[in-house]
Amino acid sequence: MRVLISAGGTSESIDSVRSVTNHSTGRLGSIIADRFAKDGAHVIYICGERADLPQSLGIEIVRIKDVRSLVAAMERLFSEYKFDCVIHSMAVSDFTPKGSVSIDEMVEGVLCAAIEANFDTCVLRDEIKTAVLSSFSAAEESKISSKSSNLMMLFENTPKIIERIKKIQPETILVGFKLLSDVDEPELLKAAFDLMERNLCDFVLANDLKDIDGDSHKAILIDRSGILHRADTKHDIAEAIYNSVKGANK
Amino acid sequence: MRVLISAGGTSESIDSVRSVTNHSTGRLGSIIADRFAKDGAHVIYICGERADLPQSLGIEIVRIKDVRSLVAAMERLFSEYKFDCVIHSMAVSDFTPKGSVSIDEMVEGVLCAAIEANFDTCVLRDEIKTAVLSSFSAAEESKISSKSSNLMMLFENTPKIIERIKKIQPETILVGFKLLSDVDEPELLKAAFDLMERNLCDFVLANDLKDIDGDSHKAILIDRSGILHRADTKHDIAEAIYNSVKGANK
Repeated sequence: MRVLISAGGTSESIDSVRSVTNHSTGRLGSIIADRFAKDGAHVIYICGERADLPQSLGIEIVRIKDVRSLVAAMERLFSEYKFDCVIHSMAVSDFTPKGSVSIDEMVEGVLCAAIEANFDTCVLRDEIKTAVLSSFSAAEESKISSKSSNLMMLFENTPKIIERIKKIQPETILVGFKLLSDVDEPELLKAAFDLMERNLCDFVLANDLKDIDGDSHKAILIDRSGILHRADTKHDIAEAIYNSVKGANK
Repeated sequence: MRVLISAGGTSESIDSVRSVTNHSTGRLGSIIADRFAKDGAHVIYICGERADLPQSLGIEIVRIKDVRSLVAAMERLFSEYKFDCVIHSMAVSDFTPKGSVSIDEMVEGVLCAAIEANFDTCVLRDEIKTAVLSSFSAAEESKISSKSSNLMMLFENTPKIIERIKKIQPETILVGFKLLSDVDEPELLKAAFDLMERNLCDFVLANDLKDIDGDSHKAILIDRSGILHRADTKHDIAEAIYNSVKGANK
């Protein structure tokens, strides 16, 4: 069995010294990777720069920094290998910085646009929107000055990696992860089933930040038929995912 | 001699899973800390969560996360100890997230404000500014939805730590750090002398990201009289700072 496991978090550069980072230790992903490797699977582990690494010998490790490098690495791996299973536990940034502007510069731009549009309410909404967007200078290659005050930053959405996986390899067993923060179980499960449906996942692990504390890690593994397993620790989660994938990989 | 050394970078939370991080390994600070400890100084090392740590026994380590916790820890240390020297090498965030908004929500707010102000150009600038600022909802405690598109984030300036040091302990020897990105030497030196003057530093280490690559680390140490030393490695920098501080600490 050949398995691709993503883990850890991405880091999107704002400028040469700052970035927007998604926190994820990668510990759960590394434990899952070790569990599959223990049974002789060919494991490729793709992870953020600071993620925990699996310990087993023979696991291929691919490090990435941001969503752009993740997409490039995934494309290369999918063209090189056919995966029996993809376990996508990485915390991938939904946004990447596109530019920054001080509030005074933005207000000036909006004011000019409103005046030029002659306050014509038919076009004003569009003109304001264009002025807001174009007031952001391109994301800085170098360092944003520490003197800027009331700085605003514009973010654009990154591509959804998980959407692409079944399109590229329809036969792979896809395990998705849904992490929310401080919600009740019905809301968490609804989000997990939505994720499953949208991306054709075979399994989804649903968990909530409030239930994660070191190795204590409550989570619910679901498939299309409903709840498969309730786990209490990261090792328990890894075991449940391993068993479910093995059962599905006939 | 009692020395406070700050190192590494701060990390300002955006929500429960994301933050804006200042990249700094803390390696230089840790080497400087080891250099002072080697000579028997009482060293307190205050650092970001992921910073490299000095190796010498007996160094007190204080970990902080964001600017708020840095300020609190600094205040406690300054009330507890009198420092002969403060070496402030930490990459402290100049900004902290204050709120986020989608572009359409902001445009709607600005449009309403403009209409309510009856397009009166005397007040329009102020009304637009108020509408832009108030469109940002407070920075999320929980997780920003991945569905938001064209997200904008507002940042507010953080307090300048280095400004406060000589105000609290006027007799301490203060070493500041100026890091720029891809500038020429006159511009770098000008910025370093400005930093020195503004914050009453006794010494400033001026360096440029383009000249840092592992232990190879070009930097210029200055005092009020001019250039004291040109260094090529982190160990060389640590030695130069140590000698200069020792000379000044009569």
